[in-house]
Amino acid sequence: MLPIELEQYLHAHIPLSKAMAVSVVSVEQSTVVLRAPLAPNINHRETVFGGSASALAILAAWSLLHTRLHAEGIASRLVIQRNTMEYEQPIHGEFTAQSTLEQPASWQQFTRTLARKGKSRIAVVSVLRHDGQVVGRFTGEFVALGATGA
Amino acid sequence: MLPIELEQYLHAHIPLSKAMAVSVVSVEQSTVVLRAPLAPNINHRETVFGGSASALAILAAWSLLHTRLHAEGIASRLVIQRNTMEYEQPIHGEFTAQSTLEQPASWQQFTRTLARKGKSRIAVVSVLRHDGQVVGRFTGEFVALGATGA
Repeated sequence: MLPIELEQYLHAHIPLSKAMAVSVVSVEQSTVVLRAPLAPNINHRETVFGGSASALAILAAWSLLHTRLHAEGIASRLVIQRNTMEYEQPIHGEFTAQSTLEQPASWQQFTRTLARKGKSRIAVVSVLRHDGQVVGRFTGEFVALGATGA
Repeated sequence: MLPIELEQYLHAHIPLSKAMAVSVVSVEQSTVVLRAPLAPNINHRETVFGGSASALAILAAWSLLHTRLHAEGIASRLVIQRNTMEYEQPIHGEFTAQSTLEQPASWQQFTRTLARKGKSRIAVVSVLRHDGQVVGRFTGEFVALGATGA
């Protein structure tokens, strides 16, 4: 999936991503990078609102699973079950979220279980950066559903 | 602080709260309730986007600390340090976030430490509800800074 395709999908189907002015920097098999500017995501201290930081991390994590499943021709529904978020530094400007699997080797097991049982879980990490520095870390657990019937 | 005052503050200083169409239902000493409609917070499955759910939970938690400190005449800067979020059910419409202190008895210790050291930590829980059902749970740890110099 091309960055512009993912960006158009996000803006069309998740209006908050458009309100946040999220752009897609890159889409690869093992990582997705999203970016958002400060202005629509600012808080009362003129840094990035924690809710915007979390939302970009979730979008990057979801996008990695969505685009990789799509690339492998696997139709499924992705649901976030839980997440943790660490806000390590205040974010004073444009920021990015880069997602990767928490355990890259778990992908095959994830898709096998999804095919066999119609339900499978996987954890994704998103790292937030601003101006070259890591400013936050997210871990989310997702469930994929329904591939057997797709 | 009146609900309308908090709502105007949020919309003026955290534009994402306006994009989410967040309204303030109630502000009490021990609990704040915020509400958001589905349309601006929808995802590709026509349920509430997890990033919006997290953001409303964060706003409710922050608002509880902000309004209670304000009511007690304590000037300080609040910073979220980390949070966990459990997405228990898909949210099919308007939803609320109700915040309370994780340990209500911790307030006095929190403000005493803030006054003495200029820095203090406290945990806030937000419960998300839709149509009378609990659909998500959030716990966030916040640091208050700077009261000694205020």
